[in-house]
Amino acid sequence: MRLAIDAMGGDHAPKEIVLGAMEAISQIDDLHITLIGDENMINAHLSNTTNMDIIHTEEVITSEDEPVRAVRRKKRSSLVLMAKEVNEGRADACISAGNTGALMSAGLFVVGRIPGIDRPALSPTLPTIDGKGFLLLDVGANVDAKPDHLVQYAVMGSIYTEKVRAQQNPTVGLLNVGTEEGKGNDLTKKAFSLMKDAPINFIGNVEARDILSGAADVVVTDGFSGNIALKTIEGTAMTMFSMLKETFMSSMKTKMAAGMVKGDLKGLKTKLDYSEYGGAGLFGLASPVIKAHGSSNQRAVFNAIKQACHMVEYNVTDRIKMTVESLDKEEKEGSQ
Amino acid sequence: MRLAIDAMGGDHAPKEIVLGAMEAISQIDDLHITLIGDENMINAHLSNTTNMDIIHTEEVITSEDEPVRAVRRKKRSSLVLMAKEVNEGRADACISAGNTGALMSAGLFVVGRIPGIDRPALSPTLPTIDGKGFLLLDVGANVDAKPDHLVQYAVMGSIYTEKVRAQQNPTVGLLNVGTEEGKGNDLTKKAFSLMKDAPINFIGNVEARDILSGAADVVVTDGFSGNIALKTIEGTAMTMFSMLKETFMSSMKTKMAAGMVKGDLKGLKTKLDYSEYGGAGLFGLASPVIKAHGSSNQRAVFNAIKQACHMVEYNVTDRIKMTVESLDKEEKEGSQ
Repeated sequence: MRLAIDAMGGDHAPKEIVLGAMEAISQIDDLHITLIGDENMINAHLSNTTNMDIIHTEEVITSEDEPVRAVRRKKRSSLVLMAKEVNEGRADACISAGNTGALMSAGLFVVGRIPGIDRPALSPTLPTIDGKGFLLLDVGANVDAKPDHLVQYAVMGSIYTEKVRAQQNPTVGLLNVGTEEGKGNDLTKKAFSLMKDAPINFIGNVEARDILSGAADVVVTDGFSGNIALKTIEGTAMTMFSMLKETFMSSMKTKMAAGMVKGDLKGLKTKLDYSEYGGAGLFGLASPVIKAHGSSNQRAVFNAIKQACHMVEYNVTDRIKMTVESLDKEEKEGSQ
Repeated sequence: MRLAIDAMGGDHAPKEIVLGAMEAISQIDDLHITLIGDENMINAHLSNTTNMDIIHTEEVITSEDEPVRAVRRKKRSSLVLMAKEVNEGRADACISAGNTGALMSAGLFVVGRIPGIDRPALSPTLPTIDGKGFLLLDVGANVDAKPDHLVQYAVMGSIYTEKVRAQQNPTVGLLNVGTEEGKGNDLTKKAFSLMKDAPINFIGNVEARDILSGAADVVVTDGFSGNIALKTIEGTAMTMFSMLKETFMSSMKTKMAAGMVKGDLKGLKTKLDYSEYGGAGLFGLASPVIKAHGSSNQRAVFNAIKQACHMVEYNVTDRIKMTVESLDKEEKEGSQ
């Protein structure tokens, strides 16, 4: 298994990226990693070069760069060179914690789509109360989705969840404003009827209120609404933690209580930390592309690497390709 | 001031509705309330009939009823009779904690729209960290919104926030997937350019991550995304409270700590409880219509009544009407 990793992407690059990569090499068999970025900066943290090489470049795409333009112009950036490793067959999959938009552009223009997939979907796994987690897609790769796109997301999400997350016959829900059939906007109404006929375990509409309780293993939505849902979860959790902190700091008594539950509350934070579930997959591309969270530490990078390895190992891309081909075939036969 | 209140709507009707109404009568001058519902059930809780009368009916729209059909067929239901009181000039505003869809239908078909407003918007005020709160609209009255609708929401939300919530020159943000101009889907891109020219204090795009931190006083979005945001906030808060409870119940030590901060945590829950800010206004109708939360207790009903009184007192409806008329006029002159 050969992975290409953008060593310069994310808030803690290259240090945490390099540490995560070394941890992965020490724990995963038959793994080879190519780190792309500033050789000097990488070497400052690289204490073991077994199964590891570096492609040196000084060009970097920052979080301030306009994504499409950056990918076109910064051809020697670590992110673009990483995507090229995959496109030219020297790597099976790639990972970046950098500019999300730029990674999506590089995915689309450098790695390329699976034939038959109209739009890739950005797909993080989010926490649920029971710790099982659920896949949400799309969270922003495609903000003007059509009903057909949502069906493809459902198929891709199901395959990923079954193979990589080892959940048999995963349930698929359509994010909507009510659970009854017939609810929703034009897009969800049309997608609902298409999803009923798709080769997935479709359980109908799910409401945003219930997704963190595990309403479905795969929650499908357009990139605009998915982005709103994702960021609302983040914002609400952040707000509550900050209110909680304020509450605990308000008096002598509450400060004492805080001391007593400090460790337990950390556990709560970990439970909500979705880097535990790996990065967000960019599904629908010709090879696995993983977006690790911008604030990824060593552990998050390691989890993203494990995830990429699983996607390669279980042939997720080929399975998506085959299923989409059979869908297209059915459609053509149906229309004859 | 004359209010019509659906005494049979909500989880705790008619008891909490009646108690809230009595509290309002005792505290607000020149207020007259007409309660609509089962006379016997209402009288069981009505200990003071000053400035209060009852319209008796036994018909009720339940939360299971299909909204549009229920409003058409159940012409003697408490909700429809309440809307008629307003339409026929016997009440200045109305309040229900019942079926949200049915209230929207009754608002549209019985109370009627303000001329020039294409679609009413359901507009709750949600909590922010600093306790100031923000108005979110629309959260589901209109799930297939057009750019023009969003501009009207912005105007209505600004007027309400300035007059009823007493926030001078309130900031208006467009809910979007990024803060930069040019971000978003087709709808938000078009709405952004229209909002720049509207008579509001438009501050551009806001992200869902920042709305609970008070990114804008008025957050404008289509009914689908707004519903997702609202229910995601509810679901995330619920999930975190349940995880917090679990954490506190996990050991002897954490149970002791829980006992010490019990009162303070209740305060945190109150801070997040948006019934403190009144009900959700259904803006754009010919008279104020308030949707109180389904789980409204006496206090929430009282807050919704205060809110309705302020809307009448400050002529929110007339101000919206005048502003929309001037917008239409400008548009016509502009196109000549």
